[in-house]
Amino acid sequence: MDDIQHQFVKNILAGTQTSMRECGSAFAPSNIALCKYWGKRDAALNLPVNSSLSISLGDLGTRTEIRPSDADAVYLNGEPVALDDAFAVRTLAFLDLFRSEFGNASFVVRTENNIPTAAGLASSASGFAALVLALADLGGWGLGGRMLSMLARLGSGSASRSLFEGFVQWYMGTCPDGSDSFAEPVSKPWPEFRIGILELSSARKPVGSRDGMNRTVETSELYKNWPAQATADLETIRGALFARDFQTLGKTAERNALSMHATMMAAWPPLIYLQPETIEQIHKVQRVRADGLEVYLTIDAGPNIKLLFLEDNEQAVASAFPGLQTINPFG
Amino acid sequence: MDDIQHQFVKNILAGTQTSMRECGSAFAPSNIALCKYWGKRDAALNLPVNSSLSISLGDLGTRTEIRPSDADAVYLNGEPVALDDAFAVRTLAFLDLFRSEFGNASFVVRTENNIPTAAGLASSASGFAALVLALADLGGWGLGGRMLSMLARLGSGSASRSLFEGFVQWYMGTCPDGSDSFAEPVSKPWPEFRIGILELSSARKPVGSRDGMNRTVETSELYKNWPAQATADLETIRGALFARDFQTLGKTAERNALSMHATMMAAWPPLIYLQPETIEQIHKVQRVRADGLEVYLTIDAGPNIKLLFLEDNEQAVASAFPGLQTINPFG
Repeated sequence: MDDIQHQFVKNILAGTQTSMRECGSAFAPSNIALCKYWGKRDAALNLPVNSSLSISLGDLGTRTEIRPSDADAVYLNGEPVALDDAFAVRTLAFLDLFRSEFGNASFVVRTENNIPTAAGLASSASGFAALVLALADLGGWGLGGRMLSMLARLGSGSASRSLFEGFVQWYMGTCPDGSDSFAEPVSKPWPEFRIGILELSSARKPVGSRDGMNRTVETSELYKNWPAQATADLETIRGALFARDFQTLGKTAERNALSMHATMMAAWPPLIYLQPETIEQIHKVQRVRADGLEVYLTIDAGPNIKLLFLEDNEQAVASAFPGLQTINPFG
Repeated sequence: MDDIQHQFVKNILAGTQTSMRECGSAFAPSNIALCKYWGKRDAALNLPVNSSLSISLGDLGTRTEIRPSDADAVYLNGEPVALDDAFAVRTLAFLDLFRSEFGNASFVVRTENNIPTAAGLASSASGFAALVLALADLGGWGLGGRMLSMLARLGSGSASRSLFEGFVQWYMGTCPDGSDSFAEPVSKPWPEFRIGILELSSARKPVGSRDGMNRTVETSELYKNWPAQATADLETIRGALFARDFQTLGKTAERNALSMHATMMAAWPPLIYLQPETIEQIHKVQRVRADGLEVYLTIDAGPNIKLLFLEDNEQAVASAFPGLQTINPFG
């Protein structure tokens, strides 16, 4: 597995020179998928079963600084992290892929998230994206976004999308070597687009996304339909973005998210990220929409709900959903 | 539509004589599907997309008495029902199919349910089964179970299964005229088999089963997989019944139910019968099972959960789920 990843990194960096600087730093935004990534066709290279499309969250995300050092150290939000903690293990395993470029250096990594940590905002997406950007800054690689998104993908699939602002598509690619599975921006800015985050439950995920994907792919009969549906949904959402057709976008994103949760529910053992509070809010979104308020929802592999709406309805949505945190991705 | 139903009834009754008696009466049990009926291929004849398999609930069900009279009247649990009430409308529309057999008589119908009415126990299943049996008693038809189950099917699909005790299979049939879509008992009694009813919510169903089925068939991408899955699940459950393999039966019934709810969740607008309390109890069933208690769940088109377990675990299940009503279907 590692050899495959090492070789992949070598191939990407083949045309670049690494000029070791004192410090690299970067910011990467978190992102929310409107058409979800669920299921891998290759675990080592994080190659997805389907293409996906997301919106990046502007200022919300991860800032990371990395310095060569004689011993590894990891800091998260200013606090040192034990090197056997899962966060540090995953970070350092990723850095292992790049050490040979930097004379087999050790590193001090400082990561700051300004995302509500329990909100299921995929901090691994912005985390690995920021780490890759910081490494590229440290090494002065001058790589383009496609290449960087392929490197970020090795840390976490959805990290490939966090390299960019705005609407981003991650192309699944078809090559077995993963060389055509990258992300890039799609469509123009949509200044009226708003995202609302409803933090509902801080219950720890019963099953991580990685294991959840595998269980769904292996045991859910309904998953058979997922690749075709995701492909159709993505085309519909792309079309809606270019046509500025919010209703089609919202409806398709909501169906896509609920279909993903449906395929999990039919897995064995049943995989249900939805919590009681989630169901309550899903019913509520349906009620307020039936009453005429144009708001749609999406849910990642966790209990929290994200709302999609336009600027015109910002006040109405905020008063219907107390405690909502509204994000303006193009603000 | 009505003509098709009338013709269907005429065909079934073709070989019988109706000898008008003073009163007909009968009891029919409620039933819970282990492999669900979801989706019609013909609305007028209630022909299903897939075969289904249920367990009848012993003494829990409907007792109905019917007498010819000069004016229609309907009583439910001792109380007169207004003739424009949905319950009376549906009952009298069903009786319309049979009036010509009885010299175009009107009827007084008295129905008693001993089922918790809010528990989602498909009172229409036992209701139409008891009504058909009472009509057959009134007319002295001497029809066999298959024929009676086809008549009951016109009132409510799942009523075809409530004609019998124990485990019952409703064969979907393939003839367009509905003449081979009937139910009959399968397998032997299983004296250790228990069903637990968790009454969670008396919230009125947002969408009736009939409309819910139609919406799912028409709008859910995931429904495409349902007929194949239901067919496979039914075979597995039949095999488990004959082999007395409770684990396989329970697991398959739970997956089947969650898959049905999953196909609904992917409909548009999303069709979610699950309430917050339902999700809470689904998570709980998974927890206690992970702790070693052999209990499975099933959920019909409503918020309530039914548990499946064996006599040996009756005490343990009752103490894990306070308020559980336990039913011994063969007691």
